Amino acid sequence: MRKYFEVDPWKIIEENFDPAYNRVAESVMSLGNGQMGIRGNFAEKYTGDSLAGTYLAGVYYPDKTVVGWWKIGYPEYFAKVPNATNFIGIDLSIDEERIDLAKVDFSDFSRELNMKEGYLERNFTVNLATDKHVQITEKRFLSKSENEIAVIRYSVKSLDQNIMLTLTPYLDGNVRNEDANYNDYFWNPLTQEIKEEAGFLTMETRKTNFRVATAMNWQLNKANYEVHRLEEDNWVGNKITVKATANEELILDKYIAVTTSRDYKKEIVTKKAVSKVSAAAKKGYQQLFREHTNAWQKIWQDSDIIIEGDPAAQQAIRFNIFQLNQTYTGEDPRLNIGPKGFTGEKYGGLTYWDTEAYCLPFYLATHNNQVSKNLLLYRYRHLEKAKENAGKLGLAGALYPMVTINGEECHNEWEITFEEIHRNGAIAYAIFDYVRYTDDKSYLADYGLPVLTEISRFWADRVQYNKQKNNYMILGVTGPNEYENNINNNWYTNKIAVWTLNYTLQAYQYAKINHPDKYEMWQQKLNLSETELKKWQDISKKMYYPRLEEYDIYAQQDGYQDKEQITKKDIAESELPLNQNWSWDKILRSPFIKQADVLQGIYFFLDEFTRESIKKHFDYYEPRTVHESSLSPCVYAIIAAEIGYLKKAYQLYLRTARLDLDNYNEDTDDGLHITSMAGTWLAIVKGFARMKVKNNQLNFSPFLPEAWDGYSFKILFRKRRLKITIKNDTILIELEDGQPLKLKIYEQEAEVIQGKVISIPLKDQRVCQ
Amino acid sequence: MRKYFEVDPWKIIEENFDPAYNRVAESVMSLGNGQMGIRGNFAEKYTGDSLAGTYLAGVYYPDKTVVGWWKIGYPEYFAKVPNATNFIGIDLSIDEERIDLAKVDFSDFSRELNMKEGYLERNFTVNLATDKHVQITEKRFLSKSENEIAVIRYSVKSLDQNIMLTLTPYLDGNVRNEDANYNDYFWNPLTQEIKEEAGFLTMETRKTNFRVATAMNWQLNKANYEVHRLEEDNWVGNKITVKATANEELILDKYIAVTTSRDYKKEIVTKKAVSKVSAAAKKGYQQLFREHTNAWQKIWQDSDIIIEGDPAAQQAIRFNIFQLNQTYTGEDPRLNIGPKGFTGEKYGGLTYWDTEAYCLPFYLATHNNQVSKNLLLYRYRHLEKAKENAGKLGLAGALYPMVTINGEECHNEWEITFEEIHRNGAIAYAIFDYVRYTDDKSYLADYGLPVLTEISRFWADRVQYNKQKNNYMILGVTGPNEYENNINNNWYTNKIAVWTLNYTLQAYQYAKINHPDKYEMWQQKLNLSETELKKWQDISKKMYYPRLEEYDIYAQQDGYQDKEQITKKDIAESELPLNQNWSWDKILRSPFIKQADVLQGIYFFLDEFTRESIKKHFDYYEPRTVHESSLSPCVYAIIAAEIGYLKKAYQLYLRTARLDLDNYNEDTDDGLHITSMAGTWLAIVKGFARMKVKNNQLNFSPFLPEAWDGYSFKILFRKRRLKITIKNDTILIELEDGQPLKLKIYEQEAEVIQGKVISIPLKDQRVCQ
Repeated sequence: MRKYFEVDPWKIIEENFDPAYNRVAESVMSLGNGQMGIRGNFAEKYTGDSLAGTYLAGVYYPDKTVVGWWKIGYPEYFAKVPNATNFIGIDLSIDEERIDLAKVDFSDFSRELNMKEGYLERNFTVNLATDKHVQITEKRFLSKSENEIAVIRYSVKSLDQNIMLTLTPYLDGNVRNEDANYNDYFWNPLTQEIKEEAGFLTMETRKTNFRVATAMNWQLNKANYEVHRLEEDNWVGNKITVKATANEELILDKYIAVTTSRDYKKEIVTKKAVSKVSAAAKKGYQQLFREHTNAWQKIWQDSDIIIEGDPAAQQAIRFNIFQLNQTYTGEDPRLNIGPKGFTGEKYGGLTYWDTEAYCLPFYLATHNNQVSKNLLLYRYRHLEKAKENAGKLGLAGALYPMVTINGEECHNEWEITFEEIHRNGAIAYAIFDYVRYTDDKSYLADYGLPVLTEISRFWADRVQYNKQKNNYMILGVTGPNEYENNINNNWYTNKIAVWTLNYTLQAYQYAKINHPDKYEMWQQKLNLSETELKKWQDISKKMYYPRLEEYDIYAQQDGYQDKEQITKKDIAESELPLNQNWSWDKILRSPFIKQADVLQGIYFFLDEFTRESIKKHFDYYEPRTVHESSLSPCVYAIIAAEIGYLKKAYQLYLRTARLDLDNYNEDTDDGLHITSMAGTWLAIVKGFARMKVKNNQLNFSPFLPEAWDGYSFKILFRKRRLKITIKNDTILIELEDGQPLKLKIYEQEAEVIQGKVISIPLKDQRVCQ
Repeated sequence: MRKYFEVDPWKIIEENFDPAYNRVAESVMSLGNGQMGIRGNFAEKYTGDSLAGTYLAGVYYPDKTVVGWWKIGYPEYFAKVPNATNFIGIDLSIDEERIDLAKVDFSDFSRELNMKEGYLERNFTVNLATDKHVQITEKRFLSKSENEIAVIRYSVKSLDQNIMLTLTPYLDGNVRNEDANYNDYFWNPLTQEIKEEAGFLTMETRKTNFRVATAMNWQLNKANYEVHRLEEDNWVGNKITVKATANEELILDKYIAVTTSRDYKKEIVTKKAVSKVSAAAKKGYQQLFREHTNAWQKIWQDSDIIIEGDPAAQQAIRFNIFQLNQTYTGEDPRLNIGPKGFTGEKYGGLTYWDTEAYCLPFYLATHNNQVSKNLLLYRYRHLEKAKENAGKLGLAGALYPMVTINGEECHNEWEITFEEIHRNGAIAYAIFDYVRYTDDKSYLADYGLPVLTEISRFWADRVQYNKQKNNYMILGVTGPNEYENNINNNWYTNKIAVWTLNYTLQAYQYAKINHPDKYEMWQQKLNLSETELKKWQDISKKMYYPRLEEYDIYAQQDGYQDKEQITKKDIAESELPLNQNWSWDKILRSPFIKQADVLQGIYFFLDEFTRESIKKHFDYYEPRTVHESSLSPCVYAIIAAEIGYLKKAYQLYLRTARLDLDNYNEDTDDGLHITSMAGTWLAIVKGFARMKVKNNQLNFSPFLPEAWDGYSFKILFRKRRLKITIKNDTILIELEDGQPLKLKIYEQEAEVIQGKVISIPLKDQRVCQ
């Protein structure tokens, strides 16, 4: 952990550049607009340590799988969104000295991420041996309004003497991934061209043949310059030589357009990039920037969280909301959210169950329905692949992959790939969560039924009937707690399997009454029989759930009671994190829990448990949970809040709030924990404010963490925008937009209408801990 | 399965060469002498499919580990005995046409492995387009009497016309492994030299720096020839041009010496090879061959098995005995037995628990004590490494590696490396087995105690005391049945752990009384306390063993009873082998057993069980066992014989008897199943003849498989050689050498003395099956 960045409500500020920390800063300073993302790399040459990263959503390379011993069913490849053509590059020479911040003397360095307006600005002054001092400013953004456009404004000003400047804006396709299993180069060059003031580079990914055209165009705010066309293999650039007098500010605007064959026919991909970049240049920097910031303004209007009395928390939550919005915009159902977004190579930009379990609630509450619907449609579109995936394991129905970009499984550890099947439940749960929040029940009839049916079929085939005990079991699984592998009867898995079967049965009931045509269509298409539905009911009735009777709680799995009954208190601080100190077998046979497992089920099905029972489960499992997944603390925070463990809730929230800003796990150099950022949002909105949709109604039962003076947040709910403020022992609810709404506060009915703020005293919900 | 080789009591004969089957034939035709081994590759150029293999015992390269996801404790490398300098090469041209059996027309091909005398002979006639017919004969052996020497006699005879011959004997260091994780070349060249009629090549393995010198010398049985020295990078040869008249037989004798820095100081390795090869050439082919065959004669005298009425079985058992003797000679305690010996790249020539569990009994009964003692000393020498290995897992004592060449773990799957800890028990059991058979109790005091102590310490730390149940458990293991991973309380593991503790306590008792000095020395050196011994007793008393009460048997592990209770009969033939048809998760949650697990324990501790109890266990577990390890059927065969399931015993024996000769598992192309060959021997000697050492006495209770007319075998036992013959409803026991011996036949006392054959009627031991 390191407090490296300056605290500011709307900015992330790096001063006093530390080269050893550059990768972390590059991750934090990443920009993205859903369509593409870039790490905060320098525009000019830099020979110090750096992870270059330009990523294009949905453009992937299937990197051949690496395993120790091959097992039947392992995927052939791990897809990776590859590092793509570097388009930010602008080489800088002053008086023929190439500027490289790893070598030149410089001062007044700052790198600032402006979250309000979505841009990155860098400032520094180069101090030359000739006693010349030259100030550089770079400002860049990936347009939120035109998602194929990027713009860089590069300004140079000599503070004292005349200088001879060379600026070389370029496009570089000679880029590699650090993480390439067999050191492969992922790209094939196609065409390239360089004119004066414009050029392009078109490449294709190997094997998958995604065509990507990157075009640039530039403008200088001065007429007298010389320009040369430079060209190498997979590299084009313009060398601009220009004189600058003392205090004259030279401004180079570099416009970039990136187009891909995901969006256009291959033949026109290059043409599109060229025309788009030329249109962008014509529109000009100011206009593009205005449109871009307007888009960000809209986002903040719908989803900002204000925290009072804790500037570091304020900065952190905005950083999280900002990065989530940079990663996924929800316009394209072919895209999804990688655990690192577009901020590094780790996890290859692929999709995990993080999306359904953690990110969906954030998008539900901060964007219009179509955005979360698109997250659901992503899985709907992959249904056939999920059926193939189940088939590979010899099972009926659909098994959604653990890790994917195109619906095919990419994960290559048997204990995860083949056994961590609870993920399938999260896909079903997301449908329920979406319908519950949006009330868009028609989704069930249009898209939900086939997905729910095939997942149910998978469960029905995967369970095993135990004649002797007349019950159903699920053997050989890995639960959400990946510190247990190949266990029998993971309660969470058994629970979500049965829940899926029941919800599917309910969905059919609903469709039968409300959408009889579609009901019949799916029944036929899916070849559904009464026998099958009865079988589901039977499984649901006779499922076995392991228990720890002594504690009156559900057991994480069969045999959990035989583990050594120690808690985190019994192990030395130096042993943590376990995954960096213990061998895998020691972790597996220990009672320690990586992330919410039984509690994940309680979180999903909170209303089925009494407060007393939730407490028992929390009291037993939390002291055994080491939270070595960034997705863990938020769930515990929400449950802690639910049972009045308010301090605990706040402590848990702190574990993820500034995870990347303070490099809490010392791995932010790899990229940001994007999906876990949604967890922080959840901890505040579902935890501190206890927002729920219950009986088709919005509920709040908030508390105020002691460390804060107050907080407020916006949510969108069924075509309304609400602002909830918790401050001065009061909860204020304001309907900023939309029709009046009945809701519940502390279980009491209330109605909000525009122009009238509801004010209710905060309840003290603390219990002794 | 394919019956490809001709049946012959002493030979393996290949006629009608099938290029598609060449790799299998190369494996089967492998030669070895404990120090080195070569696959049955052709001497002359061959561009068809072939796996070139020259392996030097104990010379290894540490190939960087490949894993999907790294886990703490994974080994850095997988050691591999690399393919070494090809020394068999003799290029042949006739009338300037290069002879390549993949291209030239040939007839009368045969490749024959002579097991009695330990050589490989190849014959074929080349039919040239010029209508010349040239007969080639190659005969080679790796000397059993001088284990650094190899000899090839290459004869060429034109059957009809004069020919111009070019023979190029060479040494080629440009050899690679097909199985190289990162495609590395494993060798560094050092020096090379070529003279007329002699040359050498010295190379070093990369990273490990084993220096290997290969020297050659050759003689032609004709004076008029031209010779050229040829030299390339890592390659030396002599091009000999000679005329041959019709029917003149030209004979080229190529002598090879291979020396390594395992045996000599680096500086003299090359000199040694050069002087040894020159001495060999001076000694000459005939003398070397005579010494070689004498050595084989001695081996057969001590260990032959004769089977009457079943020539295929006769050939097979001799093949197994032959290959075991080619692989390991027991002169060097630094060496051990790889599952594939020196016949292929698979398993890298490394050591598994196969040695202790399967091979040791063979060597005990067919070689003098020093050979099996050296197998034990191999582990004694690795004790410090085994302690480090336990330390890496955070555990006390010693954990012997799953796979090793120098004492360090090489296996890289957590479920095996970290969890298949029962292997440790086999190391302890081997000491017991050795002492039981040889009565060499002093081994305990000299070497056994520290090994037993450190293994016991490992168990004592690895068990977990369960307060509530007041018993000890072992969680998170993989048993011998590798179709279960990360299970709790594998009965076999718990059993062998407790057995180790008890045996260690007994060993201390024995040493205290009989070797008080050494007892005290070890007690001090090992810092052994009474408390520790008491702890071991406590664990032994309170160990928990899972049971299947319904069947009155031990359960393979906790939860086994919850598996689907189906047997092999319930799955289609087409699903087998499971490991080629089922995904890993399906295998894991099925009840199917890869290889003896509970029955491995019963096999080890046969005397602790009643016949009735053994029957119950066999009846339950055998129908659930798919025998997908070549090491499985022999154990079941022995137990089947024990309980009178004689047909079953014979059926099970058949599954391994001709495993490689008939390519039963379709994987002999990779190399031979060397360690499983010991299992076939066990099935006959411990199964059919029911040989045991019980109460310090040799026991036999033989039966005769219906398919055979009779069988007889030799064993060495405490400085005696016995011949046991089962034939004509009679068992004959003859003491061929040594002092009189009291033994038991069908539990009845008897005494054998030289010159007087004991004859006892065979008992009918069949039970209904």
